[in-house]
Amino acid sequence: MDDFKIFIGKNLFITFEGIDLSGKSTQARLLLDHLTGNNKKAILVREPGGTPISEKIREILLDKTNEKMTYPAEFLLFSASRNQLTEEVIKPHLAKDYVVICDRYFDSSTAYQGYGGDIDIAHIEAVNKIASGGLDPEITFFINISAEESFKRKSVRNQDEDRIEQKKIEYYNKVVNGYFEIANRNKRFKIIDGRKSIEDIQAEILTILKM
Amino acid sequence: MDDFKIFIGKNLFITFEGIDLSGKSTQARLLLDHLTGNNKKAILVREPGGTPISEKIREILLDKTNEKMTYPAEFLLFSASRNQLTEEVIKPHLAKDYVVICDRYFDSSTAYQGYGGDIDIAHIEAVNKIASGGLDPEITFFINISAEESFKRKSVRNQDEDRIEQKKIEYYNKVVNGYFEIANRNKRFKIIDGRKSIEDIQAEILTILKM
Repeated sequence: MDDFKIFIGKNLFITFEGIDLSGKSTQARLLLDHLTGNNKKAILVREPGGTPISEKIREILLDKTNEKMTYPAEFLLFSASRNQLTEEVIKPHLAKDYVVICDRYFDSSTAYQGYGGDIDIAHIEAVNKIASGGLDPEITFFINISAEESFKRKSVRNQDEDRIEQKKIEYYNKVVNGYFEIANRNKRFKIIDGRKSIEDIQAEILTILKM
Repeated sequence: MDDFKIFIGKNLFITFEGIDLSGKSTQARLLLDHLTGNNKKAILVREPGGTPISEKIREILLDKTNEKMTYPAEFLLFSASRNQLTEEVIKPHLAKDYVVICDRYFDSSTAYQGYGGDIDIAHIEAVNKIASGGLDPEITFFINISAEESFKRKSVRNQDEDRIEQKKIEYYNKVVNGYFEIANRNKRFKIIDGRKSIEDIQAEILTILKM
């Protein structure tokens, strides 16, 4: 990790991963605020969405009436949305030396539609290559909480659930295990304990980034 | 081809391919009429579309305001739509011994987004496997006309063009060449001269099917 600070001021592609209510979106936002507060050029984008076409795809993905959606179709829709975001937003900003922070990227597909949805991982990775146009994150923060912790937080919030969130706890267990499998294969993965306080997690992320 | 007549009365998965205004949709419809007129169980489906989710994806694909759509995103959207159609409509009907006629299937992606859009053909074929759930057509009628002939027919009709149809003639030349490459690799491909009359083409198709 010693080299990461040299990227700050130059471009850097950072992704955040984790299951629902892990706190990853909060941490992505705090990192953006830290960077822009220090006069770094930085943007935060989210998946699925972030371009006009990607937002239309997002509507289909989150529409509760689409209960017959297959896992492969879900995966391919996420991937289509991802390619638009990568080509229209992420790559152009990296080319202008921005730090690009992405709330979910292709590891979400591998974890959710691959390990969670039982699509062959080799096929998933072939599609990920098309969707990302060959662009891998340089560092990925995986904010880890258990499926049980996610459901506990969900019941406290009592929030209106979208289609994907209605899936059962067994599914989320497979997704969490999938994230650990990906972490084992990818040095860019940094596993952060999502049960810690927001402040402690942010400090850990900044330490890893040596800022 | 001698064996195909034994499939009629049992299930059979037939696809029609070709560029715009080749006459493939007309021939698909005539084959359906011939089959149902002879009391065969048969359905005709079209790509992209054919299920509620697929129709929503079709709207995005054909929306003229989506001019920034990338070739990979286009390909992945077609593939998502295809998986819904395959799992919700095609496979269940084949299981009930229907003849299923499909107006475009994964060869369209290989020709349009692969050969036309310059996406790596091996990647295209990996995605096609996911999209089709492993289901290949048993016979594919490629109704062939040149790009020039397609544009000539288009100017006669003076029709309102959707997003994909606005692409240029060079693109369609690559697509036509792509179909021939696919034909060289796949025995199921039957190349039909699309300049012949509708009646002659139908007769040729029925002869190939030995009906």
